[in-house]
Amino acid sequence: MSANRQVRLARRPVGRPDESTWSITTEPIPEPGDGEFTVRVEYLSLDPAMRGWLNDVRSYVPPVGIGEVMRAHAVGRVHASNNDRFPVGAAVSGLFGACEYAVSDGTDATVIDTDLAPGPTWLGALGFPGMTAYFGLTDVGRMKPGDTVLISGAAGAVGSIAGQIATLSGCRVIGIAGGPEKCAWLTDELGFDVAIDHRAGTIGRALHAVAPHGVDVYFDNVGGDILNSALAALRTHARVVLCGAISGYNATDPQPGPSRYLSLLVNRASMAGFIVFDYADRFPEAHAALSNWIRRGDLVAREQVETGGIEAFGRTLNMLFDGANTGKLVLRVAED
Amino acid sequence: MSANRQVRLARRPVGRPDESTWSITTEPIPEPGDGEFTVRVEYLSLDPAMRGWLNDVRSYVPPVGIGEVMRAHAVGRVHASNNDRFPVGAAVSGLFGACEYAVSDGTDATVIDTDLAPGPTWLGALGFPGMTAYFGLTDVGRMKPGDTVLISGAAGAVGSIAGQIATLSGCRVIGIAGGPEKCAWLTDELGFDVAIDHRAGTIGRALHAVAPHGVDVYFDNVGGDILNSALAALRTHARVVLCGAISGYNATDPQPGPSRYLSLLVNRASMAGFIVFDYADRFPEAHAALSNWIRRGDLVAREQVETGGIEAFGRTLNMLFDGANTGKLVLRVAED
Repeated sequence: MSANRQVRLARRPVGRPDESTWSITTEPIPEPGDGEFTVRVEYLSLDPAMRGWLNDVRSYVPPVGIGEVMRAHAVGRVHASNNDRFPVGAAVSGLFGACEYAVSDGTDATVIDTDLAPGPTWLGALGFPGMTAYFGLTDVGRMKPGDTVLISGAAGAVGSIAGQIATLSGCRVIGIAGGPEKCAWLTDELGFDVAIDHRAGTIGRALHAVAPHGVDVYFDNVGGDILNSALAALRTHARVVLCGAISGYNATDPQPGPSRYLSLLVNRASMAGFIVFDYADRFPEAHAALSNWIRRGDLVAREQVETGGIEAFGRTLNMLFDGANTGKLVLRVAED
Repeated sequence: MSANRQVRLARRPVGRPDESTWSITTEPIPEPGDGEFTVRVEYLSLDPAMRGWLNDVRSYVPPVGIGEVMRAHAVGRVHASNNDRFPVGAAVSGLFGACEYAVSDGTDATVIDTDLAPGPTWLGALGFPGMTAYFGLTDVGRMKPGDTVLISGAAGAVGSIAGQIATLSGCRVIGIAGGPEKCAWLTDELGFDVAIDHRAGTIGRALHAVAPHGVDVYFDNVGGDILNSALAALRTHARVVLCGAISGYNATDPQPGPSRYLSLLVNRASMAGFIVFDYADRFPEAHAALSNWIRRGDLVAREQVETGGIEAFGRTLNMLFDGANTGKLVLRVAED
C-alpha cells in the first residue's frame, strides 16, 4: 500500500454531520523531513468535542478549515523516521488527524507502552478522556471521599472513567446512561452504586429516589434536561463540572439554558467549565494514577472498536450522537 | 402612641405582590421579657430577597408563614430593656421584622454607631448589602487588581457598593443600570469607568464596545437577558458571581435559563452563588474595610428613604421591581 487516504472537512455541517460534510482524498504517503517522522495510523479517536471543531466560531481551538484534514487524536506505529525519539516501529499517540499516514515533528506526540495497555486504551482511559475525567473530578469538582457524585454520559469514554475514579476515591457514585445494557454495565462491572436509565423516565424523580439529600458533585457530559434535573438536586456547596453538552451539539435551533441555575445561588454551589489541555503540566500525575489503577486491575478500560477504515469516519463519529457506543469509541484504520 | 402596627403576610403572591399580599395588624407595644429589649423601629430595609421569602419553597431560609410578621432588617432605638448590652436609647440594627416595635433577645441584633453613619446606612453600605458586595467580589469573584469587573443592578444597594469596592481595589468597572440618571450617578459620583443603560439598547453590543476583550468578573444581580449577554462576554478564567436575579422574581411563567452557559466551558470560567450569612465569622473584616472607606470619604453610601410609615411597606417593596430606587431603598417607619 503506497497511498494515504485522509478525511477532510468538505462543508461545515448545519445540524448533524452527514455524507456531504466529509471528503476522502488520496495522496502519496508523506516522507518525513528533518527531525520528523511518519506514523502509520492504526486507531482514530472519535470525540464529541470534534463536533465543536467543525463550527466556525471562536473557541478554545480554531475551527478545522474547509479542505483541511479533520483534527483527530490517533495511535499508530512509526513508519519512517528522522527523529531519534520516535524510532521506526515505536507505538505512538498524537494529534495526527483523520488519515492513514501522518507526518509529525513530535509536537503533541508521545511514545506509548503497549505492554501496559493496547493502543485503543491510549485514546481512552490512558488518553485525554482519562485525563479529562481525572482533572474534572479532582480539580474542578474538588471531589472528596464520602461525596455523592452524579455523572451523565456515564457509559461514555469520559463518564465511565470518571465514575470509576469517584468510586476508587471513596465516593457514592450515580451514573446516568441510555438503556438497560449500559446501566447494567455501570453497576455490575464498573462498580457504580446506582445507574439511572434516562430513557426509562423522568430523571428528576429517579434522582430524588436514589439521592434524596442531593448530590455534591455533578459531572456533566450532556447538558439539556439532564443538567437541569441535576441542578435541582444539588446539595449545599455542590460543584457542577461542565465537561460537555452532547445533547445539543447538533441542534440547529438555539438550545434553552438551564432554567434551574438559581439552584447554584440558594445552595451556594458552583458550576465551572474546563479544558483538559490546560492541565498539561499535571498530565504525569494523572497518568501515574490511571496507569496504576489499570495495572492493579482496579479500573476497567473499555473501548468499542469500529472497523471499516478511514471511509467509516463520518458514520462512526455520528454513533456518538446516537449514544451507540459503550466506553471509548475508536475507529480501526489500518487493516493489516 | 401606645400601639404597634405590623405588616403581616396575608396571602402568598402569584407574580407581583399587591394589596392582597399584606395585612396591617395593630397590637399593644410588646414588653421585653428577661434578657430582652423592645426596639422602636425607625427604618425598614427593602430587599429583593424578600420576594423569595414569600414563596413556599425550600431555600436558604424558611418562607415567611401566612399570618406572620414579614421578615425584615431594620434599625431603631431601644425603647425598653432588660438586657445590659442593649440599653434604652441605644441605636440598634437587627432582624426586627416589618413592624413599629419589636422584642429581641439580642440574637441577630447589634448596637450601631450613628456617629460613623446615620441609621439608614446601617441597612445599606454598612449592612448586609455592603457585606454582600464585599464577599461576593473578594471571595466568590476572587477579584484582582487590573480585572475588568461588570456589575448589573449597579445603581442598587449591592451593586453600587460592589462597583465602588472594585474601583477602590484597582479594577476597571463597568456598571449596567436602567436610565441615564442612574448611569450618570455611577460614573460621575461613584467612579465607575463606564455605565451601560440597559434601557437604551442591546447589552451585548454595548458590552463589546466597552470591553472588547471581555470581563474577568461578572457580579449578577438581575439574571435574564443581561446574564446571558454577560456570559457571552467572559474572558478566560472569568468568574460569574450569582447574587440575585431580580428580573425574574415576580415571573409567573418558568423563566428561561442562560442559554450561553457553555461560555463557562470554552472559557474555563465559573459561576457560583453565595449567601452572605455564610460569612458571619468574617463580618468584622468586611465591616472594618467598609467603615474605613466611609470614614475616609472614599465610598459613597446613598439611601433612598421613602416615607408613609408601615402602611407604605408593600408599595415601597414594589419599587425594587420597577427599578425605582437609586442606592439602598429604606422605609422610614417612625414618624416623630
